[in-house]
Amino acid sequence: MPEPRRHERIADELRRAIADGRYPVGATLPSEAELAAAHGASRGTVRQAVSALLAEGLIGSRQGARRVVLSTTPSQSFTELRSFAQWARAGGRSAGGLVLSSSWDVAHTDEAGLLQVRRGAPVLRVLRLRTLDGEPVLLERTVYPEWIGPAVEALPDDCESVTQRLYDDTGLVFAHGEHHIDAVAAGTADAEHLRLRRGSPLLRVRRTTTTADGRPVETSDDRYRPGSVVFTVRNSTQTNPLARTRTAT
Amino acid sequence: MPEPRRHERIADELRRAIADGRYPVGATLPSEAELAAAHGASRGTVRQAVSALLAEGLIGSRQGARRVVLSTTPSQSFTELRSFAQWARAGGRSAGGLVLSSSWDVAHTDEAGLLQVRRGAPVLRVLRLRTLDGEPVLLERTVYPEWIGPAVEALPDDCESVTQRLYDDTGLVFAHGEHHIDAVAAGTADAEHLRLRRGSPLLRVRRTTTTADGRPVETSDDRYRPGSVVFTVRNSTQTNPLARTRTAT
Repeated sequence: MPEPRRHERIADELRRAIADGRYPVGATLPSEAELAAAHGASRGTVRQAVSALLAEGLIGSRQGARRVVLSTTPSQSFTELRSFAQWARAGGRSAGGLVLSSSWDVAHTDEAGLLQVRRGAPVLRVLRLRTLDGEPVLLERTVYPEWIGPAVEALPDDCESVTQRLYDDTGLVFAHGEHHIDAVAAGTADAEHLRLRRGSPLLRVRRTTTTADGRPVETSDDRYRPGSVVFTVRNSTQTNPLARTRTAT
Repeated sequence: MPEPRRHERIADELRRAIADGRYPVGATLPSEAELAAAHGASRGTVRQAVSALLAEGLIGSRQGARRVVLSTTPSQSFTELRSFAQWARAGGRSAGGLVLSSSWDVAHTDEAGLLQVRRGAPVLRVLRLRTLDGEPVLLERTVYPEWIGPAVEALPDDCESVTQRLYDDTGLVFAHGEHHIDAVAAGTADAEHLRLRRGSPLLRVRRTTTTADGRPVETSDDRYRPGSVVFTVRNSTQTNPLARTRTAT
């Protein structure tokens, strides 16, 4: 993966200091000037690092005052969230993946919009089952545009980390994601592969991931077995990454 | 509600310019120096405004390059997300609320931790049904600590906006939130009040909201009728407000 930039390294050090308990909940961080001096960095660089922690909800901002620690629970990196395998490893568990089917098809209207291709353009559809310590927990229905499809098709069916392999093989870095989260009842295929009863409540995450330039790499419908995972989002009056929208009917 | 600060006003103008189509997806924003000159603001102030849009996933950052627009879908304000009534109004719909039960009890261990009170401390438990255009969509089980409980108890049972009334009555401003999102099967009370079958898939959001100082105001278990709402989160390698965790077993 690419080298982290200066402000990212400072942000990481601050996250560690908070997770270690050097700055417990309610503690104030050093001022920007103090952090800049301590890291031999510009105030602008320090401000970028602090903004990242603010966006993650780890710290808060009081008008004119120093930053206050709000939570010591470390947040996840984008890559750890994107990559099921890297996430499982970080938690000391073993992740498995198995492609159940993979075939070329044409993009439907909604997929074409999400992938920024024309309707009817070739897309690769992959149905993939993910396991944690051997138990099925996630069924992914992922659609890839034509430019990346062949690289995905070339992966082994039991590829553990698609994210890592695509980076190794093609240099691809996933950079931005949009996630739509809701609950649905398990359909026939869901029930069969996740080994549960039809109608069971599934956590559904529909996500589209893009490169740093905003080019869509994939759009996916991911369904999690009940009781397997929880998604956590922190927000604040300063920055709110979470939106609630009414389901289109 | 309090006056927005300088960088918040600049962020709002940028959001509007993006939503209006003045900067479509793929367009680059003016440089920080240009934005500072245009708004008669310091570069630090402009950088704070830009960081907010970056955190919301509206814009991306390419190394050494200008900010690129990634999405034109406006994000929600924290207050609009927190307040069911304000959210409904923003979408042109009518929200209703009805307290089904309200009683003082003692804090259980997990609630005590979330509310930062001792185990066994008095808490107010409120069961509230929320409707959209007359249809039941959300059942809230909210627990309030002793210091704010009496103000909540004093609200009318059909209070439309608890957020607005608590601000009007006590000056309370909700400033930070942590949300844990998963799916659960409807229990007996859920089925009765949301008018659906037991076992139906519900989207569950367990949230704790705090003041700007990090003081917990409430912790709630919110269950949404299937097909009623979707939660959307954007993230990026720069900032990831979303975390996936394994359910504690």
